[in-house]
This record gives sequence, C-alpha cells and structure tokens, in this order.
Amino acid sequence: MEKSTEEAFKGTPVPSWKEQITMRAMVTSLVLSVIFNFIVTKLALTTGVIPSLNVAAGLLGFAAVKVYVSTFQKIFNIKQPFTRQENTVIQTCIVASSGLAFSSGAASNLLGMSPRVAAQTEEANTAINIKQLSLGWMFGFLFAVSFVGLFSIVALRKTMILKLKLTYPSGTATAHLINSFHTPKGAKLAKKQVAVLFKTGCLSFAFALFQWFFATADGCGFSSFPTFGLTAYKSKFYFDFSSTYVGVGMICPYIINVSLLLGAIISWGIMWPLIETKKGIWYPSDISPSSLHGIQGYRVFIAISTMLGDGFFHIVYMMGVTIHHAFFKSKKVELSNSKDEVDEYNEAKRKEYFTKDEIPTTFAVAGYIILCVISIISVPAIFPQLKWYQIMVAYILAPLLAFCNAYGCGLTDWSLASNYGKVAIFAFSSWVGIDHGGIVAGLAACGVMMNIVSTASDLMQDFKTGYLTLSSPRSMFVSQVIGTAMGCVLTPLVFWFFNKTYAIGDPDGSYPAPYGLMYRGIAILGSDGFSSLPKHCMTICIVVFFLAIAVNVLREVLKKWETKYGLYQFVPSPMSMAIPFYLGGYFAVDMCVGSLILFVWRRSNKLKADQFVPAVASGLICGDSLWGIPAALMSLAGISAPICMKFLSASVNSKVDAFLGR
Amino acid sequence: MEKSTEEAFKGTPVPSWKEQITMRAMVTSLVLSVIFNFIVTKLALTTGVIPSLNVAAGLLGFAAVKVYVSTFQKIFNIKQPFTRQENTVIQTCIVASSGLAFSSGAASNLLGMSPRVAAQTEEANTAINIKQLSLGWMFGFLFAVSFVGLFSIVALRKTMILKLKLTYPSGTATAHLINSFHTPKGAKLAKKQVAVLFKTGCLSFAFALFQWFFATADGCGFSSFPTFGLTAYKSKFYFDFSSTYVGVGMICPYIINVSLLLGAIISWGIMWPLIETKKGIWYPSDISPSSLHGIQGYRVFIAISTMLGDGFFHIVYMMGVTIHHAFFKSKKVELSNSKDEVDEYNEAKRKEYFTKDEIPTTFAVAGYIILCVISIISVPAIFPQLKWYQIMVAYILAPLLAFCNAYGCGLTDWSLASNYGKVAIFAFSSWVGIDHGGIVAGLAACGVMMNIVSTASDLMQDFKTGYLTLSSPRSMFVSQVIGTAMGCVLTPLVFWFFNKTYAIGDPDGSYPAPYGLMYRGIAILGSDGFSSLPKHCMTICIVVFFLAIAVNVLREVLKKWETKYGLYQFVPSPMSMAIPFYLGGYFAVDMCVGSLILFVWRRSNKLKADQFVPAVASGLICGDSLWGIPAALMSLAGISAPICMKFLSASVNSKVDAFLGR
Repeated sequence: MEKSTEEAFKGTPVPSWKEQITMRAMVTSLVLSVIFNFIVTKLALTTGVIPSLNVAAGLLGFAAVKVYVSTFQKIFNIKQPFTRQENTVIQTCIVASSGLAFSSGAASNLLGMSPRVAAQTEEANTAINIKQLSLGWMFGFLFAVSFVGLFSIVALRKTMILKLKLTYPSGTATAHLINSFHTPKGAKLAKKQVAVLFKTGCLSFAFALFQWFFATADGCGFSSFPTFGLTAYKSKFYFDFSSTYVGVGMICPYIINVSLLLGAIISWGIMWPLIETKKGIWYPSDISPSSLHGIQGYRVFIAISTMLGDGFFHIVYMMGVTIHHAFFKSKKVELSNSKDEVDEYNEAKRKEYFTKDEIPTTFAVAGYIILCVISIISVPAIFPQLKWYQIMVAYILAPLLAFCNAYGCGLTDWSLASNYGKVAIFAFSSWVGIDHGGIVAGLAACGVMMNIVSTASDLMQDFKTGYLTLSSPRSMFVSQVIGTAMGCVLTPLVFWFFNKTYAIGDPDGSYPAPYGLMYRGIAILGSDGFSSLPKHCMTICIVVFFLAIAVNVLREVLKKWETKYGLYQFVPSPMSMAIPFYLGGYFAVDMCVGSLILFVWRRSNKLKADQFVPAVASGLICGDSLWGIPAALMSLAGISAPICMKFLSASVNSKVDAFLGR
Repeated sequence: MEKSTEEAFKGTPVPSWKEQITMRAMVTSLVLSVIFNFIVTKLALTTGVIPSLNVAAGLLGFAAVKVYVSTFQKIFNIKQPFTRQENTVIQTCIVASSGLAFSSGAASNLLGMSPRVAAQTEEANTAINIKQLSLGWMFGFLFAVSFVGLFSIVALRKTMILKLKLTYPSGTATAHLINSFHTPKGAKLAKKQVAVLFKTGCLSFAFALFQWFFATADGCGFSSFPTFGLTAYKSKFYFDFSSTYVGVGMICPYIINVSLLLGAIISWGIMWPLIETKKGIWYPSDISPSSLHGIQGYRVFIAISTMLGDGFFHIVYMMGVTIHHAFFKSKKVELSNSKDEVDEYNEAKRKEYFTKDEIPTTFAVAGYIILCVISIISVPAIFPQLKWYQIMVAYILAPLLAFCNAYGCGLTDWSLASNYGKVAIFAFSSWVGIDHGGIVAGLAACGVMMNIVSTASDLMQDFKTGYLTLSSPRSMFVSQVIGTAMGCVLTPLVFWFFNKTYAIGDPDGSYPAPYGLMYRGIAILGSDGFSSLPKHCMTICIVVFFLAIAVNVLREVLKKWETKYGLYQFVPSPMSMAIPFYLGGYFAVDMCVGSLILFVWRRSNKLKADQFVPAVASGLICGDSLWGIPAALMSLAGISAPICMKFLSASVNSKVDAFLGR
C-alpha cells in the first residue's frame, strides 16, 4: 500500500498551505482539544501514564469533520472537500494543545510547588520553597515558555526528515492512518472504525455513569473492588474497573504493561512488606503513613532513583547514538527506510511539497531570540527564586537538548522530555540552594526545559506526518503555534477545574498526582535533602539507580548480541516499573487486562484486531474520561451518589449487620 | 439440507437396535444425567422456569463421547464408530432422566406437602395434610408411578409419527442437530460448537466462583446487586448476574422473556404497591410478610389463578384442536409437512427403520396394566390419604390425557403436563376433602398424573427424533426406560442434596421453590380454602383467571384473522407473566439480558448467532450450575466466603462508617 499511496492520490489536488488551515479545522481542533485536555490532565493526575494519543486525535478529527460535513454543510449546501492535509492540521493542533497538558507540568513540577504537596515532605517546607498555584501566573508562565521550543530546531527540519530520514514511528503511523482514511477504498474502513469508536465510547461512558451510582463515599464503588481479596487490596493490588486504563493498556506495548505489573509485585509484594518489618528500627513507628520520613519516603525516593537511573541511561545512550549516527551514519536507519526509497514517485512528490513552502532560517533564529528575551524577563517576575542569567543559561543549552530529543524520538518514538526536566530540577535546585528557594527554582526550570524539549520533538514528529501527507511545513508550524496557544489557555483552566473539584495530590484520593511529590522529591535531593531520607534509603536508592542502568544495558546488549530468540523484548522497562512503586498496582492490573483483551483478540482475528484496537481503546478512554466532566460538575454542586457498594470482611460484616439490626 | 440428509448417510451402516444401546452410551448418559439433574433441580428450586434442554443434551452427549473416543479408546486401540443412533440414545436417556427432575414434583407437589411450606399457609396446617419428605418414600413413589406413562401411548406411535405426521419441533430440532454432527461436513462445525460450549462453560464457572468470594452472608454479593437502585431492589427488580438465567433467556423465545418482565412490572410495579396502600383495611397490618393472609396471599393466589386460567384455556383449546385435527384432518399440518413428502427417499428410508423393530401392542397394554396394578397397591401405602379406587380412576383417565398432551406437544412443542397436574390437584383434593387429608391426596394425585402425561409426550418427542435419525423405536423405548430408572434414583438424591444444604422453600432465600407453595395453594383452594383468602383477593383472582383466558383468545383470534403484521406474536403469555407475580422480576431481568445478547448478536451476524447460541447458552447454564456442587459442598462443610459486597444507601453508609470509626 505504501508504494502506491501517492499514485492513489494523483487525482486529488493539494490545497495551498493557507487553505489547509480552514476555519472548521480550527473549530474542530478547539473542541477536541478541550476533550483531550481533560483526558490528558486526568491521566496525569491519576497515574501519570499517558499513552500516545496521536492516532486517537487523527481518528476523532476525521470523525468530527465527517459529521460536520454530513450535517452542517448539507443545510447550507456548501461543498468544501475534506482533504488529508486538513486532517493533518487538525491532528497537529490537537496534539500540540493536549501535549501541553502534560509538558506544562501542571500535574508535576508546578503542582510540586503547591503547599499541599509541600506539606507531605516536611523537608524544605519553607515559604520561599512554596508557591501557591493560581490561574494568573500559570497563564503567564505557559505563554512565556511554550512557544520557544517551536523555534528552537525548526530550521533543522530538512536535515532530519529529508537527509537523515528519521522514522518517527508515531508520526508515520498517524500519517498512514490519515492517508488510509482519505483514499477512496479507505473510507469504508474509516467509517467502521469511527462507528466502533463511537459505540465503545458510549458503552464506556454508560459504564462510568453506572459506576458512579455505587460510589457515594471513599472506599465505595467499583474503584474499591477487592478483586483479588482484601489482603491484596490493602497492598493496592486490585482491578478497579477503570475503562480508561484498560484502553490505555490496549494501546501501550505488552512489555510496558508487564513492567508496570512486575514493578507493582516487586515493590508492594516484596520490598515494602520487608521494609515494614523494620518499622520502629529503620524509621519511627509513630509517624503518619504519608510522611516521607516513614515508609512513604522509601516508596518515593526509590521510585525517583529508578527513574533517574533510567533517564540517565537514556540521555547518555541517545547522545551516543546521535553522535554516532550523525557523524558515522549507521546503515541500520537507512535499511529501515529503504522501503521508501523503492518508490521514487512517492519520494519525489513528498519532497516537492515538503520544500515548496519555505520557513526562512532567519525567521526561526529571530523568533527564538525574541521569545527567549521575553521569557528571560517574565519568568523571574513570576519566580523571583530564579535569576535572569540562570534562565539565559537554560536557553543557551536548550537547542542542543531539543535536537538530541527530537533525534532520539525520531529513532525510537520515545520522547525523553521529562528526563531532561528532571535533570533540570536537579541542576537548578542545587545551583540556587535550598535557602534561596532552590525547590521552586528547580521546579520552574524544569518547566522551562521540559517545554522546549517536548515541543521540539512534537513539532518534528508532526513534520514527518506532514511530509507523508503532503501537508505544507508552514501549515504544520502555524497549526502547532495555534495549538500551543490553545493549550496555554486550556491547560490551566482544565487543571483548575480538577483542582477545585477534587483533593489533587492526596496520595489516597482519586487524584494522587504522583509526579507532584516525585518532582518535589527530586528538587529536595538536588538542593540539600540527602540527610532527610530514612535509614538505609540512600543505599537502596543508589542500588536501584544502578540496577535501572544495568537493566537498560542488558537490553541493549541482548539486542545487539542475542538475535536468535529476541530476548531483549522481554527485558522490562525500569521507568515503567518505578511508577507503581509509589502508586501501587491497581492501574497496572487494568492495563494488563487491556493487554489480555488485545492478546485474545489478536489471536482470534489478527486483522480485525489491528484495524479496530485503536478505535476501541480510544473509545474506552474518551467515554470514561468524558464522564469525568459531569461527575466533576455534580461533585462541585454537592450532588453525591445514592448507593455505597462496600466491601467488608466476613467478620466486620457480621458486626455491621448486628449494628444495623439485620 | 433436509432433502439430502439420508442420501448423505447412504454409506453409513445403521446398527441393530441392541447395538445402538452401547455401554459407553449408558455411562455417558449417567454422568450427564447427574449434571442435568443438578441443573434442572436448581432451576426448579429457584424460579421454576426450565427451558428445553434437548439440544444441550444432544450437544453435550456428542462432546462427551467424542472426548471419550479420542482419549480412552486410543489407549486401548479400539475402533468403535460413534453413530447418530447412539447419540440419539444418549440424548433420549438424558432427557428422560432429567425430565423426571421436574415432573417428579420434588420441587412442586411433593415439596408442597412438607411442613416448611405448610407453615407458610396457616390454612390446612394439620397433621393429616402434611407429609415430611424422606428419601425412602420418594424413591418408592417415583418407581411406582414413573414407568406407567411409557406404556400408556407407545402403541400409538405409528399413528402419530407416520400417519398424522406431527412435527414435534424440539424433537425435530434435536434430530437435525444430531444429523448435522454426524454428516462429514457437519463435524467441523460441531467441533467448534463444542469448543464454544466448553469455553463458555469455563467462563461461567469462573464467574460463579468469583461471585462466591463476595457473598459471605445474605444480602451480600452480586446476587443482591441493586442494578437499578435500592428502591427497585426492594421491589425485587434488579440484575442478579446469574449466568444461568442469562443462558436460559438466550434459549427461551423473546416473547416469553418479555412476558416475564411485563408480569414483574404489572405486579411488583403496579398491583402490589396499590394493594399495599390498603394495608390495615384489606388485610391486617400486624401480620408476618410471608403469611398468606397478607400481601403474600394476593401474590400467590393471583399467580395461581392466572396460571389456572391459562392452563384451562390450553387444555380446552388443545382438545378442540385434537378432535378437529384427528377427525377432520386440517390442511395446515399437512402443509407444514409437505417439505418432507417432497423427498421420497428420506421418507421411505425413515419409515423402513421406524417400522423394522416392532413393539407389540399386547406388550404395551399388558405392561400398562401390570404397572397400574403395582401403582394402585403401592401408592396408597405411601399416602394413606389417597384410596386405591381413586388411583384407579386416575389411571383410567390418564391414557386419554396422555394422548391429548402428546398430540398437542407434537403440534405446538408445548407440554401441558403441569396443567393436567394442577387439574388433578384441584379434583382430588376436593374429592378427598380437607379433613381426610385432601391436600396431600391432591398433591400426590398430581404427581401420578403429571408423570404419566409428561412421560408420554417426552417419549413421543423422542420417537420423532429417532424417526429422523433412523434410530430404532425399541432402542428409544429401552433408552427411555433406563433413563427413567436413572431419574428415579437421581432425582430424590439431588433434591436431598439441595434440601440438606439450603433452606428450600423459604421465599426470601436463594431457593424459594415457588411451585411448592403454589401447588399447595391450589390444593387449599380445591379442598376448602376460598374463605381463607384476604379481602377482595377472590374477586381479583376471578378477574385475572378470565383475563388470562381472554389474552389467549385474543392471541388465537389475531393469529387467525390478522395476518398482515403478525400482531399475535406480540401477545404475552399469561403463564409466564404469572411466575414473577410471586418471585419478583430479578430473573426476568436476567432472561431479558439473554434476549438482548441474542438480539444484538443476531443483528450483527445472524448465521453465527444461530450456530452458536445454543452452545453459548448451554455453556452459561452448565458452568454456573456446576459451580453449585462445590458451593453446596462448602456450605455443608461450613466454609463461608471471606468478603461481603454490601449495598448501603448513602445515609446508612455514613452511619456504618461512623460505627466502624472510619
């Protein structure tokens, strides 16, 4: 199919870049951005595991415009063809705006500044190291830092897409999806997929609504279902009937889900129970269970060091690969692209459209410098803990890191933005020091860095999609700018909505927002906190740091030297294993259920599964997440559910029955 | 396919009738009889709704022998071909033995004699009107009365099958299934069906096991799930996650399930709440809620009169049809059989094998007379309330009724055995009178009558299956005798197992056994009980009696005169509507869920649905029912589940939380 893609589109005219950005595309993008912002924010606030939503965005964008075309346009009798370029513009815009929901750090580094999270650490709990969240400065901060990344490496697009021929798996997959939707023979399948997406979404919404009725208070309802018994439930090991995470599990690779489950078993099944036997010896027994000086400290800091170890490996490895590839140009990537080279026609056509509309390098450089200046002036105004020259240093280093990340992402589809962010926390909080507000400074610097690095790789990913769909780089760039602007407005609003409705960051609540405390923990470690760790915690942290590196090294070694069984595929991901260290295994169970469904489905009908899994998974995620909006509104209005589905042990139950006089 | 059936089997030899009854067939029948006895007894003790299990018996029989052939025989290297005649023998034997689980009346008329049921009525609660159930006399009674029916109309088999060409839909369907299994091209589908049956059975068993863990006490677990809210739950309106009844719903026609639901809504949604507003006026307010003098009386007697009305109509109607058809031979039946007549070859072949092995009429008549004599001597020994001459009268009338029922069943697939049984209760309890033990006498006479009538129609049904599979009438007859013997042993044992484990007949327990109280109620009405009814109950009963007749008349009129829209299909069945009057709607909801699954499945893929629905439904029923055995054993051993899934209203929940100090 790849071969004849552009031949199939021979008769379809490509609109100019300005025509690609239509009014309806922008309206659709805005509506879907709101939905995706809710989804991403919810995911970020619950477990922090966010799957790639590019495909869902492409699919929903297509569905929305199709519905629009078939209803609204018929009334006014307007015939405006829906092109794949327009579809790509919508997808780009949505990804840009919803990407910000995560990279803004509202649920991680910014939340880490808040008094509620600070109260959990005891360490560094001083006025200068806390910043109350407020809508005002969040808007300002996001607008100041989010556009810089777009200009940082836009000038390198031809090198990366045309010369280095980087693959960008997600971007390529999205392009294929969009191409298949718009080829005549693809339309039928697309319609079916949209129907499946819609149906699954409705079911998922209905199920979430049904669940709501039984959850009148904490510990009630399906989300507290002790699927594997009450003992396992106490170790946060249960299936919580969240269709969102079942859907997420269907999109994520098997190994990620298995890693999560493995991490949950190792930590909550083995490590924590062992450490808890030392209660009163390693750490005081009269401490609150959420204090970082107790068992929670082990959880948080061991998770952090695993993530840091994994991140450290990947940054070093990626730099190595980048240098090696850029200078010695390994054959491997060329081989994987040889398929494209076969078809001269596709190649030529795509190159023609990709180079037609220029984005001058002077424009890119000037833009970068102007935005940096604005940022250097405004960020210290928001965070006095961070000085202007410190931000300048960040902006001088940023393009290099952005290039590294965009390059690595092109090779592996794995954006390391949050790793660079963590490094930034570490570096800047130790530079500033705890007495001068190093915590807030580090977290703010993380926001600056993460935004640039993440936006740069997103942009390059979208350029790849644009390249494969003959969309103009200019329309991609403009669409990304618009999407970023939408994100800057939407992200704080959506976050605020959740923040007003629920107890964000409470480790036992529905929205534990694990990264809030994690990122603050990194800042504490960076500035001055090693002494505050509970006993032996530091030793364990160092061990897991190196273990995480070792596991990664093992995978790469196996990948290179053991090609017979492909054992490297079975090496778990330390980063994924670390998330349940803090949260427990419940969402890992959900995601493994997703994997199981995928596995059974693919076994019974591989073709159908591959065609419909993205639609079903997106439906599950969207439907469940959409229910979050009325649920939150009802919660705000003080409407609570009528029934509590409670789980009691047999002995407690007989006590309760006696109490109720039954 | 029908046309060429026997052509396809041309090369397959037909074994002699003695060879059709193999050892392995009998062993298989015995094993499956145990399973089916558990299933039927469970169904009879919960709601009394029992679907036709012929197809499931055919399917499981096939599966069992196939497994046996592929494992056991390979070891000993014996090659004994598995013929469709053998399959039919197994099916016949299972149906005969499991049919007895219902027609024995262990869960209806015999249970109605027990002190526990008697205690609920207050009326006629005297020693002479109660008989303690015991294994001893139940064995004796069943052996005395169960074989008579086989001899009652066996002599008429050629008239009914060959001359009148009655259709016997269930028997025909089973024959088609068995034929399709054994034609070479059918084997693959059969294997798939067996695999689906097995998988669904495992899932259903696993789900039942999972449910068990959450039901440590009454009011706990999935069976108390207030799916539609707590208010609806109080009116017994909820989905109780019983895969058995979902499966039953998939087998039963839509209109039956809808009738059940409609009955539940009319009674528990409208009638009972209305009557309850008259509490203290129509009936005393200080009465126990299960007393027949209160609201429970309305429920039981209104249900009884609806059933009596329906039964009355059907008996009269069927007699009319029988007389009309037998003497004037309407064209309708001939037309529906014209398909068969087209294929001379099939016809000739079947006739040849059906007439090959004779069962002499003298043998039948002699057998009937001998068995009647045994029964006339032994039954009064068990029930002194019933005199020998009364039983003799029953046996003189029985062949006529047996013929009517077998004939009607051949036309409509609807066996009216329990209706004849109800008439017998009425007649004999009023004949004996309450002071001389009319209740027990009526219920015992019901057992005598129901057994003959039901066995006769089952036998004829099996003759039809045998006719269509070239099985010998002799092997059918012998197989039925053996199956009946198995049933006489198994039924009391299985019933006893349930009786020892659970509180059978408790209206609020898991095994309410509705027919126990119903049948006793009929006996009370028959002998002397009209005066004991609560106020206005008699009036309402008369109204619903005639309403039930009117609804049936309406259906027949529509069937005859309104052929354009086929509106008669939408007329509900009063008999089905009456069951939830007493029990409430929960199982109707289950069964409608089954209908819904069937509907959606058939809409998406009709062919596949039609091929696999019987397998899935049987799997659901078998798996769930099989779990009943370990569950009962654990209950006997005093092992209870560890968790209670409890459903509390929001206000009660906060009280409980306060009590538990959460």
